[in-house]
Amino acid sequence: MSSTYGKIFKIATFGESHGAAIGVVVEGCPAGVTFDLAFIQQELDRRKPGQSRITTQRREADTVQVLSGVFEEKTTGTPISMVIWNEDQRSKDYSHIADQYRPSHADFTYQTKYGVRDYRGGGRSSARETAARVAAGALAKLVLADLGVTVQGYVSQVGKLKLEKEYHELDLSLTDSNAVRCPDPVMAQEMFDFIDAIRKQGDSIGGIVSCVLKGVPVGWGEPVFDKLHAELGKAMLSINAVKGFEYGSGFAGVELLGSEHNDAFYTDEDGRVRTRTNHSGGIQGGISNGEDIFFNVAFKPVATIMQEQESVNREGEKILVQGKGRHDPCVLPRAVPIVEAMAALVLVDFYLRDRTIRHK
Amino acid sequence: MSSTYGKIFKIATFGESHGAAIGVVVEGCPAGVTFDLAFIQQELDRRKPGQSRITTQRREADTVQVLSGVFEEKTTGTPISMVIWNEDQRSKDYSHIADQYRPSHADFTYQTKYGVRDYRGGGRSSARETAARVAAGALAKLVLADLGVTVQGYVSQVGKLKLEKEYHELDLSLTDSNAVRCPDPVMAQEMFDFIDAIRKQGDSIGGIVSCVLKGVPVGWGEPVFDKLHAELGKAMLSINAVKGFEYGSGFAGVELLGSEHNDAFYTDEDGRVRTRTNHSGGIQGGISNGEDIFFNVAFKPVATIMQEQESVNREGEKILVQGKGRHDPCVLPRAVPIVEAMAALVLVDFYLRDRTIRHK
Amino acid sequence: MSSTYGKIFKIATFGESHGAAIGVVVEGCPAGVTFDLAFIQQELDRRKPGQSRITTQRREADTVQVLSGVFEEKTTGTPISMVIWNEDQRSKDYSHIADQYRPSHADFTYQTKYGVRDYRGGGRSSARETAARVAAGALAKLVLADLGVTVQGYVSQVGKLKLEKEYHELDLSLTDSNAVRCPDPVMAQEMFDFIDAIRKQGDSIGGIVSCVLKGVPVGWGEPVFDKLHAELGKAMLSINAVKGFEYGSGFAGVELLGSEHNDAFYTDEDGRVRTRTNHSGGIQGGISNGEDIFFNVAFKPVATIMQEQESVNREGEKILVQGKGRHDPCVLPRAVPIVEAMAALVLVDFYLRDRTIRHK
Amino acid sequence: MSSTYGKIFKIATFGESHGAAIGVVVEGCPAGVTFDLAFIQQELDRRKPGQSRITTQRREADTVQVLSGVFEEKTTGTPISMVIWNEDQRSKDYSHIADQYRPSHADFTYQTKYGVRDYRGGGRSSARETAARVAAGALAKLVLADLGVTVQGYVSQVGKLKLEKEYHELDLSLTDSNAVRCPDPVMAQEMFDFIDAIRKQGDSIGGIVSCVLKGVPVGWGEPVFDKLHAELGKAMLSINAVKGFEYGSGFAGVELLGSEHNDAFYTDEDGRVRTRTNHSGGIQGGISNGEDIFFNVAFKPVATIMQEQESVNREGEKILVQGKGRHDPCVLPRAVPIVEAMAALVLVDFYLRDRTIRHK
Repeated sequence: MSSTYGKIFKIATFGESHGAAIGVVVEGCPAGVTFDLAFIQQELDRRKPGQSRITTQRREADTVQVLSGVFEEKTTGTPISMVIWNEDQRSKDYSHIADQYRPSHADFTYQTKYGVRDYRGGGRSSARETAARVAAGALAKLVLADLGVTVQGYVSQVGKLKLEKEYHELDLSLTDSNAVRCPDPVMAQEMFDFIDAIRKQGDSIGGIVSCVLKGVPVGWGEPVFDKLHAELGKAMLSINAVKGFEYGSGFAGVELLGSEHNDAFYTDEDGRVRTRTNHSGGIQGGISNGEDIFFNVAFKPVATIMQEQESVNREGEKILVQGKGRHDPCVLPRAVPIVEAMAALVLVDFYLRDRTIRHK
Repeated sequence: MSSTYGKIFKIATFGESHGAAIGVVVEGCPAGVTFDLAFIQQELDRRKPGQSRITTQRREADTVQVLSGVFEEKTTGTPISMVIWNEDQRSKDYSHIADQYRPSHADFTYQTKYGVRDYRGGGRSSARETAARVAAGALAKLVLADLGVTVQGYVSQVGKLKLEKEYHELDLSLTDSNAVRCPDPVMAQEMFDFIDAIRKQGDSIGGIVSCVLKGVPVGWGEPVFDKLHAELGKAMLSINAVKGFEYGSGFAGVELLGSEHNDAFYTDEDGRVRTRTNHSGGIQGGISNGEDIFFNVAFKPVATIMQEQESVNREGEKILVQGKGRHDPCVLPRAVPIVEAMAALVLVDFYLRDRTIRHK
Repeated sequence: MSSTYGKIFKIATFGESHGAAIGVVVEGCPAGVTFDLAFIQQELDRRKPGQSRITTQRREADTVQVLSGVFEEKTTGTPISMVIWNEDQRSKDYSHIADQYRPSHADFTYQTKYGVRDYRGGGRSSARETAARVAAGALAKLVLADLGVTVQGYVSQVGKLKLEKEYHELDLSLTDSNAVRCPDPVMAQEMFDFIDAIRKQGDSIGGIVSCVLKGVPVGWGEPVFDKLHAELGKAMLSINAVKGFEYGSGFAGVELLGSEHNDAFYTDEDGRVRTRTNHSGGIQGGISNGEDIFFNVAFKPVATIMQEQESVNREGEKILVQGKGRHDPCVLPRAVPIVEAMAALVLVDFYLRDRTIRHK
Repeated sequence: MSSTYGKIFKIATFGESHGAAIGVVVEGCPAGVTFDLAFIQQELDRRKPGQSRITTQRREADTVQVLSGVFEEKTTGTPISMVIWNEDQRSKDYSHIADQYRPSHADFTYQTKYGVRDYRGGGRSSARETAARVAAGALAKLVLADLGVTVQGYVSQVGKLKLEKEYHELDLSLTDSNAVRCPDPVMAQEMFDFIDAIRKQGDSIGGIVSCVLKGVPVGWGEPVFDKLHAELGKAMLSINAVKGFEYGSGFAGVELLGSEHNDAFYTDEDGRVRTRTNHSGGIQGGISNGEDIFFNVAFKPVATIMQEQESVNREGEKILVQGKGRHDPCVLPRAVPIVEAMAALVLVDFYLRDRTIRHK
């Protein structure tokens, strides 16, 4: 199992959904970062369950405890260990699935690969693991903030409800003003009602999180394999339920001619080299070019639904399964801080890697 | 610069478009693989320039030379070094761009990041580098072939010309029967004519390569970060000109309900656990589930076009640039073996990693 | 800071001497290992302070708590997180050194490198960190035990008191029968008295831990860089206070002729290829050859002594420093389980890596 | 097989003794280093065979060819590939050992581990591989030279002939003035005669290479696992025939009291924090402290001797083997540039890693 991410700013996450705790060890965080614990907790609060009636009602305070790496409110350059205790474990909710393979969950693949699995609430495959990513990503955001770099995610699509405006036509400061985390209040309400209706049917729905990275200087990303968008793509695809990633012109760009798609260079009034359009999505040759970076992340509908479904058990016998626990009808609202966290981790890693590129 | 890929089956590529040679060192290839040099050369031939009038006319034999790691036609477990000499360097073609930033190329970002760059033909940022990947990927395919695993890519879209049939409705054995590498002969001809028309305009066009992996056993992939689709995504996004990646239901899946999207399990006549549908794209929880794996890769239009474009030079002065060398109006046909190579590299790495998962 | 060790069986340690806790996350432990918590605790007890009057009187129960990765007493293949809480922190003991550089400690180098440091008890540079290694190493020993591989360390020298017998002339089962961990009872008593006398002088003394690895099959180790002895050497040199490493004939071997040093091969009655002598120390070409592996690790005298010493403070001003806390006059007895733990970690990693070497 | 070394400045070596070529790909060399090819060749010349009658008479020009990563005599930040062609392969010399296990060589362990091996001249286990390290190390030295850091190795012991003076009592500029590479001309002559006598007996002898690193600033090295001396140790132990490593006070230091061993700090006339003694060998807590770094590396006698020895073949049958090819009676003179190369590689890697340690 690979629970480590990053080359310089490296995180190692651990923990199962219904074990004692989940957590993360961050190695390679530079020394001297002001450790704003309140901000980290606030990011966790954005991800935690029970925020509105369209998210799971599992009760978790998700309070983070710091075990190491911080002294007198500064990072010391040593590993930073953060733990989030599992409070509302309710293991009995899951006893009925010990032997079952839930459709489109990881039960079957984990059991076959490892020969053993912690079946309680999905164990390690539960999206609960992403809380550890959010804690580490919040720390990464603190580093980026000192560099003037921001990471802003928002829900741009739920089912067929799609925000047609692009990121620069929206007021992204409104994102967290509603339970859906869609920066367009009208669309946000539509999405909320839609998700709520699906919740009542015991069903689930997918959607898209869009994300914008502003203030990234020219030079982050490492071709030929660790291109900035390749790492962003991997980071996003590693999030539970993600099915696709595109940046800049993305899939739509395949229909354009080169003469339409190419971004003409010019020099702006500050003497900075800029591009007139941004089909490149702020990345050229795998390296940031100073323009805004933007990308989309596709999430499938949550696998757990409250309807009966055909499946098999470990013995291969036909069974019917039905979700019982407390689950999200749509992960998108809670996915926004996770997408942001992973993007921040990618950026900080390249920020530090970039320091090693030039001689003297 | 990161030119290394893989954790166990690791490749390190090197070389510039117009340097002495490009090549790759493969470390971690298991000992005892029958080294079929003819097959490796054949894969390189599928990628090499000059295959038809819709690909670049640069002349490169792309003959591979093996320097190490093979003895009596078997791999020995030691690093395998393969070199492809650059024959048709024609550096003079590129002298005019020493000081220019070509739109949507990596000239500006490389120059800014590294402070120095080999400007001849894009240097390291040239897609010529992918020949080294194809050589290594061919070796990976040899390993997979012994396991009954196949990797089949094909062109499914060029501009707006889109193959509506899914992979299982196509005869993929026809893929290499035409210059476009589209398995539907009628569509292939349409695409060919379209690309050829664009070539005559001095323009370029994007498209999509689809890819199917058959025979992958249950268990490949390592959550939580190195999920099988996350590594496939990164590998694809690391290829020049790629803008997006999706697998299984992909971006379209966001519009489905959970009750529509979930893949019901059943046990087949051989006692094997299967799914009735395959929205999961053969991967659940980041691990292969034994079904076919399929994904799409979006390529933007080639940045080099034969038309005048606005840009700036290193001094930030406004200039006009115009492609002169020998370039592809559409990379898709030559991209197929590259996509396959990267997929094969991802699979072989997980095949070997999977051996370390269980105790005894 | 690098707090990660291993390529497949990877550990990430964290924690400062006087922070909330120290701990370790083990990634890559195979699934299905019987998790014997009592054994892990027992190994920690061998390292913990306060075992006799010749070890530090700091009071730490060093009770390990498992947060993840174990279900129904089996490892699940997911990260195993183990935490040891710091109970006897007594931070006030160290306030006097906030600004001081203690001779031959890491105060000066940490302060200069990181610009900030947790000065309490050495912070991250304290040997307390090695408790986390012992916990992880105990888990590694559990894996090895199932393979019939044993790791046995013992104290072979303290100051000039040197055990002249070689490991095969000793009864290593007596090692833990005395406070010094020397398998020769007579020498053990001499060493104990010597260390106790040094303790009374407020001074400290160095020594050598020898270690024998039995039952290692032919084939562990990965040339050319990760030779078995190179990894063992690095692992040992990473332990606090270690100044040297040698294996097999070691430094003494440089005086031998090739005709004296070479180990003649023969086939034993079981048809197994053996060597008549073992100057190779069980490793040839960086790979285990099936013979016993043995090596020596040199430890300098502990830097903290109860005598006044010349030094400087952060401002570079001349000061006198004197140890006050509770320290070991000789680390050797407590170093034995640490040496064993690191050796076990090296071996398990190669055991797993070796599974990827051969095709089919 | 692990043929990769380094985390930022990474090398991947390849090649067998009697294959087409050996070589190295250097990834992570900073952009903008002046690439002094003549210097790199000169370092290779220091290692190459045939320098005097006490080294092997195998004829190899060992001319390096650069395939990538250098443009207009500067490194570009892209992978630098260097190849050394094998000229004097004489494979027929080795046909007689195809089926034999030479005592204290890697034949038996390679055959058992990999199931196949290139038996010609030891194949990958041949010390010929170290030429690739020397090429990469020479590049590392170029980087270090710009920082004022020097790496100086010399032969301090051959058999029982031991230089009693320490490095600061010697004129290290004389090291390359004689065939042995001992900076004391009188001792050098004694050693030469001794090695020559052993050569005539068809035997071999071991010895020690000492090495001094001057000019290393405070701060290189990464505790807790990648301590500077731990990486130096691993790097040295990865060189063929090395049996031991010690730094600073080394093995002798175990006999000292803490009050004798501790290095008192003081502030020198330039305001720099220094130590009055240097038992620490320039490294404290795994990090360079600004003093000279020095260490010793023990080499066993070369395994190939011209005398008959008992052994077995692949079938386990008793045989007699006798060296025939062209081998060194003592590797020490040629080992000096190899030790220096590995030390330079370790230092450059930490130089670059150190850039990532502090925030802003």
